[in-house]
Amino acid sequence: MYLERIGSPADVRALDASDLPVLCQEIRRAIVEKSAAEGGHVGSNLGVVELTVALHRVFESPRDQIVFDVSHQTYAHKMLTGRAAAFTDPAHYADASGFANPRESEHDLFAMGHTSTSVSLACGLALARDRAGENHDVVAVIGDGSLSGGLAFEGFDNLAELGTGVLVIINDNGWSIAENHGGIYANLAELRATGGAAEHNFFRSLGLDYRFVADGNDLAGMIAELEGLRGLTHPVVLHVCTAKGSGYDLALADPERWHHPAAFDAKTGEPRRAPAPGAPLATYAEITGAWLSAQMETDSLLVGVNAATPYIMGFNPARRAAAGSQFVDVGIAEQHAVTFTAALARGGAHPVLGIYGVFLQRAYDQLWHDLCLNALPATILTFGCSVFGTRDATHLGLFDITLLSGLPGLAYLAPVCREEYEAMLAWAVGHTGGPVAIRVPGQGVVSRPELAPAAGEGFAIPRYQTVRRGSDVAILALGSFFELGERAADALEAAGVHATLVNPRFALGVDMEALDEIAASHRVVLTLEDGILEGGWGEQVARHLGPRDVRVRCFGVRTGYPDRFDVDELLASNGLTPEAIAGAALDMLADQGL
Amino acid sequence: MYLERIGSPADVRALDASDLPVLCQEIRRAIVEKSAAEGGHVGSNLGVVELTVALHRVFESPRDQIVFDVSHQTYAHKMLTGRAAAFTDPAHYADASGFANPRESEHDLFAMGHTSTSVSLACGLALARDRAGENHDVVAVIGDGSLSGGLAFEGFDNLAELGTGVLVIINDNGWSIAENHGGIYANLAELRATGGAAEHNFFRSLGLDYRFVADGNDLAGMIAELEGLRGLTHPVVLHVCTAKGSGYDLALADPERWHHPAAFDAKTGEPRRAPAPGAPLATYAEITGAWLSAQMETDSLLVGVNAATPYIMGFNPARRAAAGSQFVDVGIAEQHAVTFTAALARGGAHPVLGIYGVFLQRAYDQLWHDLCLNALPATILTFGCSVFGTRDATHLGLFDITLLSGLPGLAYLAPVCREEYEAMLAWAVGHTGGPVAIRVPGQGVVSRPELAPAAGEGFAIPRYQTVRRGSDVAILALGSFFELGERAADALEAAGVHATLVNPRFALGVDMEALDEIAASHRVVLTLEDGILEGGWGEQVARHLGPRDVRVRCFGVRTGYPDRFDVDELLASNGLTPEAIAGAALDMLADQGL
Repeated sequence: MYLERIGSPADVRALDASDLPVLCQEIRRAIVEKSAAEGGHVGSNLGVVELTVALHRVFESPRDQIVFDVSHQTYAHKMLTGRAAAFTDPAHYADASGFANPRESEHDLFAMGHTSTSVSLACGLALARDRAGENHDVVAVIGDGSLSGGLAFEGFDNLAELGTGVLVIINDNGWSIAENHGGIYANLAELRATGGAAEHNFFRSLGLDYRFVADGNDLAGMIAELEGLRGLTHPVVLHVCTAKGSGYDLALADPERWHHPAAFDAKTGEPRRAPAPGAPLATYAEITGAWLSAQMETDSLLVGVNAATPYIMGFNPARRAAAGSQFVDVGIAEQHAVTFTAALARGGAHPVLGIYGVFLQRAYDQLWHDLCLNALPATILTFGCSVFGTRDATHLGLFDITLLSGLPGLAYLAPVCREEYEAMLAWAVGHTGGPVAIRVPGQGVVSRPELAPAAGEGFAIPRYQTVRRGSDVAILALGSFFELGERAADALEAAGVHATLVNPRFALGVDMEALDEIAASHRVVLTLEDGILEGGWGEQVARHLGPRDVRVRCFGVRTGYPDRFDVDELLASNGLTPEAIAGAALDMLADQGL
Repeated sequence: MYLERIGSPADVRALDASDLPVLCQEIRRAIVEKSAAEGGHVGSNLGVVELTVALHRVFESPRDQIVFDVSHQTYAHKMLTGRAAAFTDPAHYADASGFANPRESEHDLFAMGHTSTSVSLACGLALARDRAGENHDVVAVIGDGSLSGGLAFEGFDNLAELGTGVLVIINDNGWSIAENHGGIYANLAELRATGGAAEHNFFRSLGLDYRFVADGNDLAGMIAELEGLRGLTHPVVLHVCTAKGSGYDLALADPERWHHPAAFDAKTGEPRRAPAPGAPLATYAEITGAWLSAQMETDSLLVGVNAATPYIMGFNPARRAAAGSQFVDVGIAEQHAVTFTAALARGGAHPVLGIYGVFLQRAYDQLWHDLCLNALPATILTFGCSVFGTRDATHLGLFDITLLSGLPGLAYLAPVCREEYEAMLAWAVGHTGGPVAIRVPGQGVVSRPELAPAAGEGFAIPRYQTVRRGSDVAILALGSFFELGERAADALEAAGVHATLVNPRFALGVDMEALDEIAASHRVVLTLEDGILEGGWGEQVARHLGPRDVRVRCFGVRTGYPDRFDVDELLASNGLTPEAIAGAALDMLADQGL
């Protein structure tokens, strides 16, 4: 096995050229086998095997600097830079993360996982190189949907002006996570169809030199092309056509499903774990998609908006087809998604934007300047905002509340259960008083009929829901941490303290009336939130109670970038266990002589 | 005077065509005279006079929807939509803000002032129109530097796919605030030089229909062109060349100076208020520019970065010329500015990004994902973050702390005076432990040698500076509110309470050791910050002191969008006066029986 002998890119360069196709086969097999075992980014990584081998055959990383965007297509790169065992040996699977990671290797220049960053990064590396009087190559590999993000455009725009030696490789596999959207992809398709000779050329229009490679899965051709592009002294865009899923027929046939499948049988492609029978609405994505689809039939002004991840809101290909122009996937373009949503509301439509919390980060100014400043009635559903969500440092869903905490006039609701979520969603879509965001619960679907809002209840102004009434200690447990609060209350009960338990329901702002009442009748208040403490919801409670004669302690996750963490360990290290929470409350009571 | 008879665009349509040139002259005179009296956006507004008259002559606002981007070029639009007196009658100057504002008129669809939003807004308006079965026109006017922002690209990209009737007018005056930067502007220049027939065309490359108008200051031609573009059923880009400053020779000759001059003599162009003699370093911009320029001479790796506002960091044309490739203005492209800065640091350069706080909002994910996740040693200087900064709702400098509050590993320093600022700047540029941001004081330059950090003092870890040591009450007064804290302490002294006064110096994170000591020796802690309370710095202090036996009250500005506010009124309404602060402390002491 050649892969076993590859300790660094130098070993790739030392191989006989005739051995390289076998190396590619080995890499491809490892991608499929590891992904079959634990899920992974299958299609895009299969597509760039030859491109990656060619890159390490021609350039001399880390002296030459290669930036992969999006970095989920770095499996082959990792295998060729000392991390082959993390893909070939199940005992070492955990050694490599799914994204570029400088802690793993000097060949990974940046921890990165969001898209559209590489051209800007290459600009910075190149200018730093020039200022230092060095002369190595700087290469950005961008693709798999990344081009639609405005940051990529900003990077190309500035690169043209900097005018220095940078090679930008467009890995054009014709797909994002789902199908591609937008004018730039139509231009890529034209260029593909014409062998790079189409009349209109986005890259040339920005003043960039442009080359075309028709078959990026042809290793020898790829190597030859790159050989001619060493030592550049001006920017060149190399448009490389690859096949997403190349070498694995199942993935070639259905790129959306094979973008990032969960564990599967490598031969049949069947998922390892079949969905439980009789549970068609077992996820909040499904609940959301079903509700919105049904609603669209009676409300022709309802418009679903999404940025390249339609599945998070349950819009599978069938629902997208049924929705027609009532569902718009804008591609990876979160800023546009928010501003477009704001204008839909201004124009009288009823927009509902579904987005991962971690990607809503890419549109803060659009929330601030286009949506909230104009107090427009749009609904935003944030997904994955939880310690129970994604566990890669690049994709943490823990920063949404701190991000949104200062936004004027935004109602940010945090339902605990399905009943609350459905009531809040229905209310938000009909609400005309301003923007509403809903923090879709981060764990599996929970049914708690006793928490269901009263019929016709609105959510324009923070109103807490007291679930248990006790004394001395009040636990305010937000959204997906409500159950944790419940268990902490149970632990206090066992210690003889009958605690009050509150479902705050609002992740921004406070219910002053409820807090006044709580401060007057309790000695200790605890806040629990499934997110970062700094700038979060608990701090707002702490500020409001600061002048009152009551002790407050905020529980949440200390800010940082935990990577591939164990949830229970992360919770325990932040004191987020029923026992630790109850213990803290008892200590605070004892400190007051109670 | 025709302007006096224009109550709405219908009156523009009712005028005889031969009267329109005089109307344009009147508008132009009003732009110059009002700007001469109180400062304003001169050049861009002079450039779009004919375009705006033509728009309201041809389209029927508000039925037809026109979105101006950037909205600082709406003076003529305002004069033609019922707000002429706000430009012709000094007694009514305050009736119109400098930006689009729906509270002023139904012809202003959005409150907006940041750039690059209009194409996305037009997409949303157009789809809402289509869903409602209506058929009015939707027009976006984009220009004056807005094209380089990635959001504009995202909008064009999606517009091409939506394929519906939208007219996007590119107001190409060849300038941003300073000169334009980037490949797209090179393409516009090519198109200008070739009458729109250049081989490469950015808009066509995205699949958009394209038309060219060589002289957008030719009213009759402009009207004729727009007449042919009513009732569009597909997207069209109309590239209109205008002269920034048209009709006013002084502004034509120096577009950067005349982008937004302060009050001036309309005849000579001289500023009304001459800079005080002998005060060459009277602004933090000058201090910054002088320090960085000097430093560049000995540190060839130092690189200044800016996004289209070089003057905020003192980089006037002379300093930019001297810096060469050590100063990069990336154009209006804040996302790229931050990611580029991160990569410069990764490549070993010493980047310093100067940026308005309100525009740093446009790059949160780049701070989170590119800079902080990678713990890269870059320096960011935030300007205008203060109630004493810009007073338009669109440009509030109050949200920076709440924006940054959760960012892991970011040191955010808040100097009070020149001595602290210079020490922190010098330390930040040499610091290799991670990113450092400095909140440049928002008021005039203050010299306080007694607050100067000790020689060699670092700022990696929050360390408070106790300026007065008292008892009972501790006032923690951040950055530009330090003086307010000092005066509150004086007011308490007069009431017989000898308060402790602390210069916290860090706008993120807390000095736990200092807070513990303060909690143990005081009954009341007050935090004062020149920014929004929600998600801000005071709340972090309140959380840390929450479990302790001490009362905390946070002073700052309640979140919202105050517009063209009176600073003293805003401060008073938020209890931000020495008397109110001292009174609150006394009340909290009395409440504890002290």
